[in-house]
Amino acid sequence: MAEKGEVKLLGAWPSPFVMRPRIALNLKSIEYDFIEETMQPKSDLLLKSNPVYKKIPVLLHHDKPICESLIIVQYIDEVWSSGPSILPSDPYDRAIQRFWAAYIDDKWFPSLSGIAKAQGEEAKAAAIEQVREGLALLEEAFGKCSQGKDFFGGENIGYLDIALGCYLGWLRVSEKMNSVKLLDEAKTPGLTAWADKFCAHDAVKGVMPETDKLMEFAKIIMARFQAAAAAATPAK
Amino acid sequence: MAEKGEVKLLGAWPSPFVMRPRIALNLKSIEYDFIEETMQPKSDLLLKSNPVYKKIPVLLHHDKPICESLIIVQYIDEVWSSGPSILPSDPYDRAIQRFWAAYIDDKWFPSLSGIAKAQGEEAKAAAIEQVREGLALLEEAFGKCSQGKDFFGGENIGYLDIALGCYLGWLRVSEKMNSVKLLDEAKTPGLTAWADKFCAHDAVKGVMPETDKLMEFAKIIMARFQAAAAAATPAK
Repeated sequence: MAEKGEVKLLGAWPSPFVMRPRIALNLKSIEYDFIEETMQPKSDLLLKSNPVYKKIPVLLHHDKPICESLIIVQYIDEVWSSGPSILPSDPYDRAIQRFWAAYIDDKWFPSLSGIAKAQGEEAKAAAIEQVREGLALLEEAFGKCSQGKDFFGGENIGYLDIALGCYLGWLRVSEKMNSVKLLDEAKTPGLTAWADKFCAHDAVKGVMPETDKLMEFAKIIMARFQAAAAAATPAK
Repeated sequence: MAEKGEVKLLGAWPSPFVMRPRIALNLKSIEYDFIEETMQPKSDLLLKSNPVYKKIPVLLHHDKPICESLIIVQYIDEVWSSGPSILPSDPYDRAIQRFWAAYIDDKWFPSLSGIAKAQGEEAKAAAIEQVREGLALLEEAFGKCSQGKDFFGGENIGYLDIALGCYLGWLRVSEKMNSVKLLDEAKTPGLTAWADKFCAHDAVKGVMPETDKLMEFAKIIMARFQAAAAAATPAK
């Protein structure tokens, strides 16, 4: 348990990275103050707490800052035993979950963002194919990690569930905006069932944004980027 | 301790990433078979053991593969207690070391590689400045982590020492090739003294490549890239 004011989280509701520590804190039944960060200007508290990246999320524990979402999740797991373990106890299983979590951040999520950035139909189709190839790898990993249970972590949500699950809102936005199925019952049956169970989990459902609300947010962001790009392009 | 044949490492002597598990295994006094990987073609064992990235290092423990250098280092620390702990015991200290290790791989090392890739004097000077800014941040981190002792890990080499130290050979090659000082007694006194102690450590000195040998290797690699780039450029 944590005393009032002991744990604070600097974040913003649409961020998949902020969702990670929120789920971890929920799993451990830790109460925390959620300090909603504005996009512009960044708060003094954020600039002081994460001077290297100036990015959310930042966890403040007794006012000491911890940055980077997966590092925060590991910190939460190591500090509080008031809930199920987030990392598996076996070192090999931990290594496997760390491997796939890094793959998701370094390779798979950039390919998902690549769909929105792709210029032209051909580039978009190639980006969609890349996301599907990544999901096929993750489907295989799900089979090995879950061993027939509901989650990558077995009976409960673990590190790799949090690492991938935080992107489900954005995956659904991408599906809707591009009228395409990415999670597919025929090709990724394990992940498709997992996604439903993950989103319905008590630790997740309060922090997973609704797809329509997230899509409105995505449209505003994309319009801003397009306006900035148009302003930067010299007139012909 | 490990039985004969229990631990194998797929690697190559010039790779900074391969040096990480080698140092960790040395710290834990674990004997292992070092399987030198050829650049081209990649071995069947490597392709089978790391099908996602097809990259070294891969640790094989009882023939089960573990990939990604810092994940392997954590695995070694968790499996073997036959030596000092590599990660600190305090969760906050662990989070700080993980933060800086990720910074080194994601930001600082790419800036060091950027010196070799820079086209023209101005770009080279900017790349050098970026490396120095990173080293200034790491100097500050060294002061906080080491608390006046020899290493980031205190009295012994730890996770962050291994994460940064593995690049010292390439840092020295870059200094020599560009006739520039990057680690500097005036600006980074803590890191400069640390680098000497790190390289002289029993767990490190056998695996840290000599600067001249590494420079010969770097010249061969650069000549190969330049030849490939020239072949790909259409004649004018």
